[in-house]
Amino acid sequence: MSTPGHGTPERRSFGHGDGRILLGHGSGGRLTASLFHDVFLPAFRNPALEAAGDQAVLSLAGTRLAVTTDSFVVSPLFFPGGDIGRLAVCGTVNDLAVGGATPACLTAGFIIEEGFPAEDLRKVVASMAEAAREAVVEIVAGDTKVVERGKGDGLFITTTGVGLVPDGLRLGPGEIRPGDQILVSGHVGDHGVAVMVHRAGLEPGGTLRSDSAPLTGLAQALLQAGPGAVRCMRDPTRGGLATTLAELAAASGTCFQVDEAEIPVRDEVRALCEMLGLDPLYAANEGKLVAVVDPRAATAVLEAARSHPLGREARWIGQAVEGAPSEVRLRTVVGGTRPLDLLEGEQLPRIC
Amino acid sequence: MSTPGHGTPERRSFGHGDGRILLGHGSGGRLTASLFHDVFLPAFRNPALEAAGDQAVLSLAGTRLAVTTDSFVVSPLFFPGGDIGRLAVCGTVNDLAVGGATPACLTAGFIIEEGFPAEDLRKVVASMAEAAREAVVEIVAGDTKVVERGKGDGLFITTTGVGLVPDGLRLGPGEIRPGDQILVSGHVGDHGVAVMVHRAGLEPGGTLRSDSAPLTGLAQALLQAGPGAVRCMRDPTRGGLATTLAELAAASGTCFQVDEAEIPVRDEVRALCEMLGLDPLYAANEGKLVAVVDPRAATAVLEAARSHPLGREARWIGQAVEGAPSEVRLRTVVGGTRPLDLLEGEQLPRIC
Repeated sequence: MSTPGHGTPERRSFGHGDGRILLGHGSGGRLTASLFHDVFLPAFRNPALEAAGDQAVLSLAGTRLAVTTDSFVVSPLFFPGGDIGRLAVCGTVNDLAVGGATPACLTAGFIIEEGFPAEDLRKVVASMAEAAREAVVEIVAGDTKVVERGKGDGLFITTTGVGLVPDGLRLGPGEIRPGDQILVSGHVGDHGVAVMVHRAGLEPGGTLRSDSAPLTGLAQALLQAGPGAVRCMRDPTRGGLATTLAELAAASGTCFQVDEAEIPVRDEVRALCEMLGLDPLYAANEGKLVAVVDPRAATAVLEAARSHPLGREARWIGQAVEGAPSEVRLRTVVGGTRPLDLLEGEQLPRIC
Repeated sequence: MSTPGHGTPERRSFGHGDGRILLGHGSGGRLTASLFHDVFLPAFRNPALEAAGDQAVLSLAGTRLAVTTDSFVVSPLFFPGGDIGRLAVCGTVNDLAVGGATPACLTAGFIIEEGFPAEDLRKVVASMAEAAREAVVEIVAGDTKVVERGKGDGLFITTTGVGLVPDGLRLGPGEIRPGDQILVSGHVGDHGVAVMVHRAGLEPGGTLRSDSAPLTGLAQALLQAGPGAVRCMRDPTRGGLATTLAELAAASGTCFQVDEAEIPVRDEVRALCEMLGLDPLYAANEGKLVAVVDPRAATAVLEAARSHPLGREARWIGQAVEGAPSEVRLRTVVGGTRPLDLLEGEQLPRIC
């Protein structure tokens, strides 16, 4: 689940769009948050949902169970570095991973448009199986529905993950304290920009690919740096790094001070973003995590991250500080400061 | 999960439709089975998926966990007796229930078409919340995606359920023995025919409504009739009673002898089926179960069923017998015998 963020109440108006759902309601930013707070949460209210993490954690028969679900509607279905199947496995595994859970099983629901090529379905399914092997998890249950031509868009997949959370592990924005350091595990924006470029029919001729990858191993490596070393982790998918930071700052009640110069963005991504009018900080990642870390454990955590293949480019990008609660302040490369907020509207529809 | 049935290999050709997915691949009958056996099972193969029950059962940290998922694409979204939200909760709860599991939590993934009325979303969500209260379960995690106008059909919902299975409970087609009695908990075909009639714009003026209801209470009542009394349960959704019986007979390796005269079908359903050219035995149910029962416990099980509000019309409809393994033989009301097999093709697309 990418449970959306915590806009201040006056900003959470659902009234956009004349009472109709807009593309932006699915983009993981402010409109998605309004949908959650105005429609879903009041109807379904319960402690697990209210916690609004990437996954719900339940105590069940003496076990701490993490549960998360995500629907995938990415367009196009195949893109450099992955496809909807790989995304559907990694996305759900990663929501478990950043909660400190190891995956126990996945389920997958397929909604297929009539006329979809069986060969493409086989490719997607093979890709899911491969990603599941990488993530050391099995797909134990599934369902298939078919809708008429023109009532779908090829293929949508909804995956749900069940995982186990170690006893005593405390992770979450409530653990964040002023002085904590903020780590990002690598270059941001690769997935979102790779899909947008491919969708636009551009062939950058470079090496840009989706970063889609299962994060369980990296997340576990960080946690093993020491008890209490990691306060909270998130995977910055829809809405990008900026939205994730804004959500974490709001949920922790601290101020995040972030240095733009420290945020790793590939030159290629930066150039393409300029061309397409995008901001890489709002572009989705599917194989990166953000960790907020106890400063006393910073060296051990960075070392753990960089020792893992998916964390070699890990960097400190800022810290939680006193003052201006719930805000993210970005020190820009030109020396100014600007606030970072949840994604507005629909910069990148159907990116996952 | 409505994991599809067990056609004999030579009948499982996926080659229908010139390598393209047909509506019938989602109808829960033979084509759905071919998709499962030819595409999903080879790629994802694992013991839980191979068991091909309504739910996967895993041993996890000393607990028996049941997991099931279903995507809902019913059209229209609102119909007499329910809507897609009620269906999405009951359908998944019922897949847990017939495995003897009590639900621990649900997740829900929403795929919404741009322009969908927010008011309709609120109605569906309220209906999900009400069904979840009836089923004594909470929706603990969710996700929302929005697709452009013309790339969806209003609203699709995928629910996943996690439940607990009591230690030592043995249920499944492998437990079925010749001599076992087959019970159906009430009138069949109500849901499928109610939706088809509504879709056709017919107003029967009668009382026909979808039977959509959570079956946990009824299933538990049957199980409490005595240890080992119930061999196996299923909820006959897509593909109807006939497809469920065909799947159970095949999976158990016994022959099912069923009396058409004993199968309860409302007069209204029978009349509408004649008008629409449908067979009520292949029409979906969303609040009925089929139980195969140890004959020594038959009296206790029938009494338990009839004591429950959802089982008042429970009836014995036949028995498992020696001979003709894996077949269902229907003794018709006119005195003949005909085989009942998996649903062919697409009698009732998008019924759930």
